[in-house]
Amino acid sequence: MQPREPGPGRREERTAWGTFANPQAGALNYVTAADRVAAAGSVRHGTVFTLGIGIFDPRGDPLSADRPKAMLMHYRDWSHYQAGRCEPLPGGVASVDDGVFVSSHGTTHIDALGHIIADGVMWDGHDAAEASVRLTWASVAPLGNAGVFGRAVLADVARYRGEDPLDRRHHVTLAELLATLAAQGTEARPGDVVLLRTGSLRRYYESGAEEYFRDYSEPGLSYEPELIDWFADGRISGLGSDTLANELPESPTIDAGYPLHRYLLRNLGVLFHEALWLEDLAAHCAADHRWEGLYIAAPLKIIGGSASPVNPLFVK
Amino acid sequence: MQPREPGPGRREERTAWGTFANPQAGALNYVTAADRVAAAGSVRHGTVFTLGIGIFDPRGDPLSADRPKAMLMHYRDWSHYQAGRCEPLPGGVASVDDGVFVSSHGTTHIDALGHIIADGVMWDGHDAAEASVRLTWASVAPLGNAGVFGRAVLADVARYRGEDPLDRRHHVTLAELLATLAAQGTEARPGDVVLLRTGSLRRYYESGAEEYFRDYSEPGLSYEPELIDWFADGRISGLGSDTLANELPESPTIDAGYPLHRYLLRNLGVLFHEALWLEDLAAHCAADHRWEGLYIAAPLKIIGGSASPVNPLFVK
Amino acid sequence: MQPREPGPGRREERTAWGTFANPQAGALNYVTAADRVAAAGSVRHGTVFTLGIGIFDPRGDPLSADRPKAMLMHYRDWSHYQAGRCEPLPGGVASVDDGVFVSSHGTTHIDALGHIIADGVMWDGHDAAEASVRLTWASVAPLGNAGVFGRAVLADVARYRGEDPLDRRHHVTLAELLATLAAQGTEARPGDVVLLRTGSLRRYYESGAEEYFRDYSEPGLSYEPELIDWFADGRISGLGSDTLANELPESPTIDAGYPLHRYLLRNLGVLFHEALWLEDLAAHCAADHRWEGLYIAAPLKIIGGSASPVNPLFVK
Amino acid sequence: MQPREPGPGRREERTAWGTFANPQAGALNYVTAADRVAAAGSVRHGTVFTLGIGIFDPRGDPLSADRPKAMLMHYRDWSHYQAGRCEPLPGGVASVDDGVFVSSHGTTHIDALGHIIADGVMWDGHDAAEASVRLTWASVAPLGNAGVFGRAVLADVARYRGEDPLDRRHHVTLAELLATLAAQGTEARPGDVVLLRTGSLRRYYESGAEEYFRDYSEPGLSYEPELIDWFADGRISGLGSDTLANELPESPTIDAGYPLHRYLLRNLGVLFHEALWLEDLAAHCAADHRWEGLYIAAPLKIIGGSASPVNPLFVK
Repeated sequence: MQPREPGPGRREERTAWGTFANPQAGALNYVTAADRVAAAGSVRHGTVFTLGIGIFDPRGDPLSADRPKAMLMHYRDWSHYQAGRCEPLPGGVASVDDGVFVSSHGTTHIDALGHIIADGVMWDGHDAAEASVRLTWASVAPLGNAGVFGRAVLADVARYRGEDPLDRRHHVTLAELLATLAAQGTEARPGDVVLLRTGSLRRYYESGAEEYFRDYSEPGLSYEPELIDWFADGRISGLGSDTLANELPESPTIDAGYPLHRYLLRNLGVLFHEALWLEDLAAHCAADHRWEGLYIAAPLKIIGGSASPVNPLFVK
Repeated sequence: MQPREPGPGRREERTAWGTFANPQAGALNYVTAADRVAAAGSVRHGTVFTLGIGIFDPRGDPLSADRPKAMLMHYRDWSHYQAGRCEPLPGGVASVDDGVFVSSHGTTHIDALGHIIADGVMWDGHDAAEASVRLTWASVAPLGNAGVFGRAVLADVARYRGEDPLDRRHHVTLAELLATLAAQGTEARPGDVVLLRTGSLRRYYESGAEEYFRDYSEPGLSYEPELIDWFADGRISGLGSDTLANELPESPTIDAGYPLHRYLLRNLGVLFHEALWLEDLAAHCAADHRWEGLYIAAPLKIIGGSASPVNPLFVK
Repeated sequence: MQPREPGPGRREERTAWGTFANPQAGALNYVTAADRVAAAGSVRHGTVFTLGIGIFDPRGDPLSADRPKAMLMHYRDWSHYQAGRCEPLPGGVASVDDGVFVSSHGTTHIDALGHIIADGVMWDGHDAAEASVRLTWASVAPLGNAGVFGRAVLADVARYRGEDPLDRRHHVTLAELLATLAAQGTEARPGDVVLLRTGSLRRYYESGAEEYFRDYSEPGLSYEPELIDWFADGRISGLGSDTLANELPESPTIDAGYPLHRYLLRNLGVLFHEALWLEDLAAHCAADHRWEGLYIAAPLKIIGGSASPVNPLFVK
Repeated sequence: MQPREPGPGRREERTAWGTFANPQAGALNYVTAADRVAAAGSVRHGTVFTLGIGIFDPRGDPLSADRPKAMLMHYRDWSHYQAGRCEPLPGGVASVDDGVFVSSHGTTHIDALGHIIADGVMWDGHDAAEASVRLTWASVAPLGNAGVFGRAVLADVARYRGEDPLDRRHHVTLAELLATLAAQGTEARPGDVVLLRTGSLRRYYESGAEEYFRDYSEPGLSYEPELIDWFADGRISGLGSDTLANELPESPTIDAGYPLHRYLLRNLGVLFHEALWLEDLAAHCAADHRWEGLYIAAPLKIIGGSASPVNPLFVK
């Protein structure tokens, strides 16, 4: 499962295409059974952090204006019974029922590997024709079938820099990521999900949507050849952060929009965990000086879907 | 946290109202930090089972006709790019984007404790006025805040009886549940999620929706005073099964529809995990003779919602 | 605006492509200003029939199982005020607010001319690429811009045959259509909308959805070369009926599904008005022996949409 | 059908409650069959104006931020066929299919009479309990059953004042409305829909949503006792305008929000036609000096709905 060298016709980009036993699970293949046992065994205190953000938060939900907001559709609630629109069952049971609409990328979520196309080619070298309408290759369903269960390490860059939140145009370089991990006394291991805290989502809730999206940018990683190699050589299975897009929207290094979605997600099969709530976890980590733990995320098996909302757990 | 005795005005029903430190998390309060550590430590092989069913399964999704089907709304896919409706970003990144509508109780899900009302009263004794429109008490969001992480035990009743699937009007009594657990060499412990396999969901996919919902019934537990006591005294945190409603729709013991939703969920705060896919897990358990493991489910924090779709993990 | 003869490469099909001043309005171009003045002037009694069916009819709405049902999403109603979720404005005004989801072809509607593609070609010879994602050619919006206002004539075939409703596999031939019109003392004129009553929608409400869609068929017209010529030579602007699809689903004359959608709608630009409620109108016509009148329908200007729900008026 | 005098307990407000043969149609009862025949007979040139605005306008759709935007849900389009996701029928027919979600008050629409509640009472004196969840009294469906067909008169206040668009806080008084009508040589007659042009919707499309809704106001009528009497005594059936709310949001005359929704719609049963596109019509009227014509609007029969999108026709 060593990522192979780029071949001719691959534009000299490093990819992990063709290297995985379960290709639609991408870099989740790096997580071994032994890793999972070890991660489970790392749980010492039974303290659970849930990293999903609220849906229908009264302060507003952080999604860009081009995506429809979530809607809760009330099929039946107590007011229906009071108004005589329906009757309790024999025995007295009345029930509240509803449906929910949510933009797949509009709350805490994991991207499908088929979410990104470049040069007409998707993850693992498949033709973009499989991304016409529903994804027939690398939708989020195979990630839901596999489940994410393993070790994660938090790199609290905002705390490391003493700039919390990070400036929204701040470029977290590989060097800074590694320095943060080193300062924490942590390291990333094969199979890990690497979590980056920037303080951005907290800023959203403090400043509001209008302020957040005005002249929009978010701090984060961006393209560096060494960063791509670090993920590939390190067999990193996922990247997560408390931002909406997991990377600087405009790259300071190359003329490209969201390049890591191409070089990490589409090329290497790295799972993107986006819009994570990391504040409470990070405070705890700073207090007990342990920035690693068991991380679990279970995408819904939305067949053909480009992402799934999730509520990941980090257990220490 | 001992469930208190029913008082006057409580209609002699046993409830756990007023007994929990975090009342909106209900019987999840029974799961202690030590339970969580022990459950994590029980992972031996790192084998993960994902118990959610597919959404948009080509064989149809198992939900009753009165609930709207799921919809995948395509905001942007490869055909948009081909048709010239949008352009890749600089650097070549194109992306697929969508939203999803799903009936909260129309796929694998966990019920909010506020899902059920009886006699104008909700979980923990709150007035049903808090179930008018969005739930302002005991919505699914507090369950998402807590997360479900602990031990589960599978009672494979269909295998125990040698009737797979169980007849759809079969009443699984407490005696039969206990006999199944005993035959397996298992027991339910405080904090556990008890999972019941009936074979019903497999029947759905084999027979199709029309057959499944014609003269509809599903096998399962139903009201018995001893069963209620068993859950309360045993401090069971959750009940799950491979059926849509977790109990016999029409009770053979009392004149009531869905009585366990009243006596377990509303009265005791037991979480209901519904429409679980248990076939693969059960086959594995039968092979290795271990019917217990680490169980994780993370409802989305749908503020005000009556349930959340989930994709639970069972790890052995 | 004479429909032109089929040319080479057109597979010898008669089309009206390239013949209209306002091509996206199709056969509505046949309706002249003088026709509109005459139709308005034909109103004698000021009796209005509204031909739309209900949405959320308690007896069920007649749409096929593959289309999602309509949903009414309650943003705010009186129960919100009672529950203290919102407050009336100064001066005491409280308001009820909602949104509606409806399948465009799932209630009384008019098809966009771009609804149908054959051999990769749409109405007026445009390439089907304009039907990728939203319609960029011949969506329903241009029909909404134009509006339908002119003369309609009702051919009450069910009454003419004394078979009401018609057998659901009954083929209404051109000969029978003409015989019906003749027996009524009526004729179709250039610019007319021709309305065909079969009794089918009444059968839906009487028998229910399960019965209606079991071994589904509906009576109606089907492909005959003479019928196509009759529409083209007669400059008929629209075809409507009290069925869901305006034609026999399986053609008794050629090996084709829904051939009139190709030969009339896509080739000639004839507007299809579907799922009309004609029972009350037809009873009135039979009583006063006038089967013609002013017909108005105004599709919503759904830019890119394949149809629009409408509530047509017939005024006598 | 004379509006009755306010009685005790009616807070001295003038209402038309209890005066109509078809109460759920409100002031549409003022339109007589003779009025309809006369309006139809007034059509001289057969020129049709469609007054609905586009849905999914590339410039944005004018709805306030608290209402969800419209969505077009693609069930099937040409890209599905190209991607091999579905096959044309025998005979070659392929089809595009979709559904549409729209906020009922978020495009050109007619309010249900049950849209407004004051002091716990709805139109015609019904208790607000009938506005819990779906409207069971005075929803938009009865207006759809009746249909709007009659005379309308346009009062082009923006042109009259030479201020186009009107300042967004401009109060159009009854005196100014009457002066406009007089200057045009027009009058309002019993049964009429009175249309007021302010230029506001054009401003929306010219300035964009952010500018339009910043410090939001729209010009229009507001509460004056004489205005209420003018509508009641004049038997006006409807009020329409090119604004989103048909009146000044904040009244300059009394301490009330949207008072005309109470005094005209709820009390008198006057239909509110909102967000009409009047620019093209108004230009034509100014050119031919005729500000009256046949007006038709047909709400969808959304049972229980608080409004319906419409595309009204004005025919001269």
